[in-house]
Amino acid sequence: MAEKESEKMEKLVSLCKRRGFIFQSSEIYGGINGFWDYGPAGAELKRNLRDLWWQTMTRDRDDVVGLDATIVLHPKVWAASGHVDTFTDPMVDCKTCKGRFRADQLDDTPCPQKPSKCVAACEGEKTEPRAFNLMFQTHVGPVISDENKAYLRPETAQAIFVQFKNVFESSRVKIPFGICQIGKAFRNEVNPRNYTFRSREFEQLELEFFIRPDEAIKALCGTVRQWEEGADLSQPAEDWGWEMWHRYWTEQRLQFCRDVGLPADSLELYWQKEDELAHYAKATVDIMFRFPFGVQELEGVAARGDYDLRQHQAHSGKPLEVFDEEVKAAFAKWSDDQREALVQRKIAEDADAGDAASGPEAVRAWCERLFKGFYLPHVIEPSAGLDRLALAVLAAAYCEEESTDAKGKTERKTVMRLHPKVAPVKVGIFPLLKNKPELVAKAKEVHNLLRRRLTCFYDEGGSIGRRYARQDEIGTPFGVTIDFDTLGNENPDLADTVTVRERDGGTQHRIPINGLADWLAERIG
Amino acid sequence: MAEKESEKMEKLVSLCKRRGFIFQSSEIYGGINGFWDYGPAGAELKRNLRDLWWQTMTRDRDDVVGLDATIVLHPKVWAASGHVDTFTDPMVDCKTCKGRFRADQLDDTPCPQKPSKCVAACEGEKTEPRAFNLMFQTHVGPVISDENKAYLRPETAQAIFVQFKNVFESSRVKIPFGICQIGKAFRNEVNPRNYTFRSREFEQLELEFFIRPDEAIKALCGTVRQWEEGADLSQPAEDWGWEMWHRYWTEQRLQFCRDVGLPADSLELYWQKEDELAHYAKATVDIMFRFPFGVQELEGVAARGDYDLRQHQAHSGKPLEVFDEEVKAAFAKWSDDQREALVQRKIAEDADAGDAASGPEAVRAWCERLFKGFYLPHVIEPSAGLDRLALAVLAAAYCEEESTDAKGKTERKTVMRLHPKVAPVKVGIFPLLKNKPELVAKAKEVHNLLRRRLTCFYDEGGSIGRRYARQDEIGTPFGVTIDFDTLGNENPDLADTVTVRERDGGTQHRIPINGLADWLAERIG
Repeated sequence: MAEKESEKMEKLVSLCKRRGFIFQSSEIYGGINGFWDYGPAGAELKRNLRDLWWQTMTRDRDDVVGLDATIVLHPKVWAASGHVDTFTDPMVDCKTCKGRFRADQLDDTPCPQKPSKCVAACEGEKTEPRAFNLMFQTHVGPVISDENKAYLRPETAQAIFVQFKNVFESSRVKIPFGICQIGKAFRNEVNPRNYTFRSREFEQLELEFFIRPDEAIKALCGTVRQWEEGADLSQPAEDWGWEMWHRYWTEQRLQFCRDVGLPADSLELYWQKEDELAHYAKATVDIMFRFPFGVQELEGVAARGDYDLRQHQAHSGKPLEVFDEEVKAAFAKWSDDQREALVQRKIAEDADAGDAASGPEAVRAWCERLFKGFYLPHVIEPSAGLDRLALAVLAAAYCEEESTDAKGKTERKTVMRLHPKVAPVKVGIFPLLKNKPELVAKAKEVHNLLRRRLTCFYDEGGSIGRRYARQDEIGTPFGVTIDFDTLGNENPDLADTVTVRERDGGTQHRIPINGLADWLAERIG
Repeated sequence: MAEKESEKMEKLVSLCKRRGFIFQSSEIYGGINGFWDYGPAGAELKRNLRDLWWQTMTRDRDDVVGLDATIVLHPKVWAASGHVDTFTDPMVDCKTCKGRFRADQLDDTPCPQKPSKCVAACEGEKTEPRAFNLMFQTHVGPVISDENKAYLRPETAQAIFVQFKNVFESSRVKIPFGICQIGKAFRNEVNPRNYTFRSREFEQLELEFFIRPDEAIKALCGTVRQWEEGADLSQPAEDWGWEMWHRYWTEQRLQFCRDVGLPADSLELYWQKEDELAHYAKATVDIMFRFPFGVQELEGVAARGDYDLRQHQAHSGKPLEVFDEEVKAAFAKWSDDQREALVQRKIAEDADAGDAASGPEAVRAWCERLFKGFYLPHVIEPSAGLDRLALAVLAAAYCEEESTDAKGKTERKTVMRLHPKVAPVKVGIFPLLKNKPELVAKAKEVHNLLRRRLTCFYDEGGSIGRRYARQDEIGTPFGVTIDFDTLGNENPDLADTVTVRERDGGTQHRIPINGLADWLAERIG
């Protein structure tokens, strides 16, 4: 990374520790690589991001419900999902130093015995690369045996697929609808790096949005709307197939990133190329953010077809199809010839799939089920990392300012320009002087007035400038000062008004106490 | 459990699955014993409880800050806390059937080979009891070795102690203050039972509240206030020692339980007896709830002294003492004789501790540090289980009602009398008829008006009675019906008013749409 960016990163890391955003996990024991804790400011920041995601993704919508599933699932879930077989990194062992290294990073990894050389160049004989599974393993029950082996989930998504039928049957939802979940996930990264960006324990924000297969849309609407540049994505429509829904969720997620304070020009989309896509994915777009250490993935939006439900249906032996009365009715209007034409077209498409083909019998069976209104919904998956999002928000907010004080002295200070909605503290409350009981009493009165609606921080220690500066460092958007004017000592017109200072720009306003909570709430959103 | 209660429990479990509160984890794969998922209604219920706890415990207070730490900590944390050595159940193996059983439950456990006999009575030869550690184990990094062994935290508390110094130094807090945390914890229970009450993966709500040692309070205030029946616990005071703080937090937590809808007469306190207390605990009180399967612990409030910080200080080699200017100043006013008298009194007390004694040198050193203002804070720990709390709330809310319809037919229905604050959905919104576009349009208008402030559920399917009944089953406190009067068809005075039905009692109110959100918000709190 460029020197300036690297320096910024160092300063951000230092501020995050100093002001209680992020600590190394178990720091007093030397830390544990790839694990990070969130201090008081960080816990509130993460909480705000989590709440905004939940509000946007489910409470504000009619078509998404929530789920809160376990971290330890039945091990067969991970066999079905493919994680047991394929969620691996290739590793080599060095027969000399006994170290284990990522085969694809040998050229970058220093040899522990000869740190001047990278592992590839040191003389130690290496084993052939072997697959190392990235899932953390544990055992459930009192006996440690292969039979009792279980995994910490490497993603929250699979629990959603596994509970799809239970949710569908209990919650009065209709396709299209989504199930969203927030929770911890674990990946035993060989090389955790870039601060909290790639860690071993992290928190995910995932939505699985279940839609009708395009063939059903065609039968219902006569056509499946195709994406074109500039298409209106604001309002989902009946004739949307997977492509429009995929574009829609990409736009929704981009909007969310901007809403929590990431500048539009720090965000970009990366469309995965044919050879990068997972074999079952129809399309995947990564929302990328310009971190100080480079442009990296913030979240991904994948069109996964019916792959996951199909896998779980096959491995569990439990039917996961939905019955869709409207789809049945639509196909009932088709002639036998029309239906046979669809079967033949699907068989031809399937034949083109090569190794991944299902075969004509399976394709025909799928069509016959669809004609009767039964199908496995297809899935659009917007999947975000909360830790990455928090880090992006912190990096975007970090800002240094120079100011000249009354005596002409230039001072450099750090301001975290966090969006008011995500800031850990919304309002700092300051009596002008600590040793004037009337000021302190009035300030506490204001505090009590505001605290039920806004997270406040009351501070009476040090000069007002110092107190502003401390709040600037944790990104508090507003500071309220209670001074002698508030008491009405000089000018009765100013009695029961306070000075509100904006963090950004430093503009000051004189606001009556009885309108203060509304004034602030309006600006915080 | 009594038959009636057992039947109630069965009905509750069935409702929880049917209406999306609780599912068995990985159910389609046969489930995984001791793991439970929360469906759409359950996820919202848990979220509401979590939010209320966080609001009450930190955002509403000046003296508590939050933390959000990892589930996997450095393994030395659990050596220091005592969990590696003592967090065990005694287990025996049966040499005949090869089963492993809790030694203290042999009399209750059926023999897998001869189910008519309990394990104790079957002929299979048993091993001597061996300690089985209840922490889930895993390995961090690519090599599975003892060196890389780590544990899933069996409680969230230790992460708070480990980060105590970082929080103290970054957050402008002063003793007394607390650090609270919400998060998952894991215990490899040999015998998970009572639905979600004793599971292997669960969520904790913990506060560690750090206070001055009583000796410091004595120096500062001349006296340490003693608890007596009826003492005012509403406002903490300078002269409170651990006993008053312990009583205070017990009362706070009881109040919380009542505030989320647990009836006062279903709650009781159980004070642990001398021989039940952990060796370091000065007092522990359990808040017990009358579950259908018996009176069981909902949460505990423990006075833990400085045991935890002392252990981590010793094991990490990092000083965790705080410096307290006021305590230093208070002791500075003492004469040498007064200080020596305190040293002698502490040495005598220590001698009484028998095996647990520190010895006169250590006691003197502790006193000398205290005189200079340095000490390890003492701790009061209110520790609740979110899953237990949710289960208690669900059990308390469960209620069956009989009603007679217009045709004289008696119907039995289930109503979940959840407190409006915790109910997953606050308002059901119903157009009287589905096939009248004006009613549907108006109902959607009302929905859009309410949804930003309250979680709503829009339902147009089936009779109004059926729709009410469905919402009753998930505990929705209010139902809003949009009818022809709303459209002003009959009586212009009723235009733009709706019928609001209360879940409890069924009282109906006619409310103007423009005041509806306020009317509801006021009653939901």
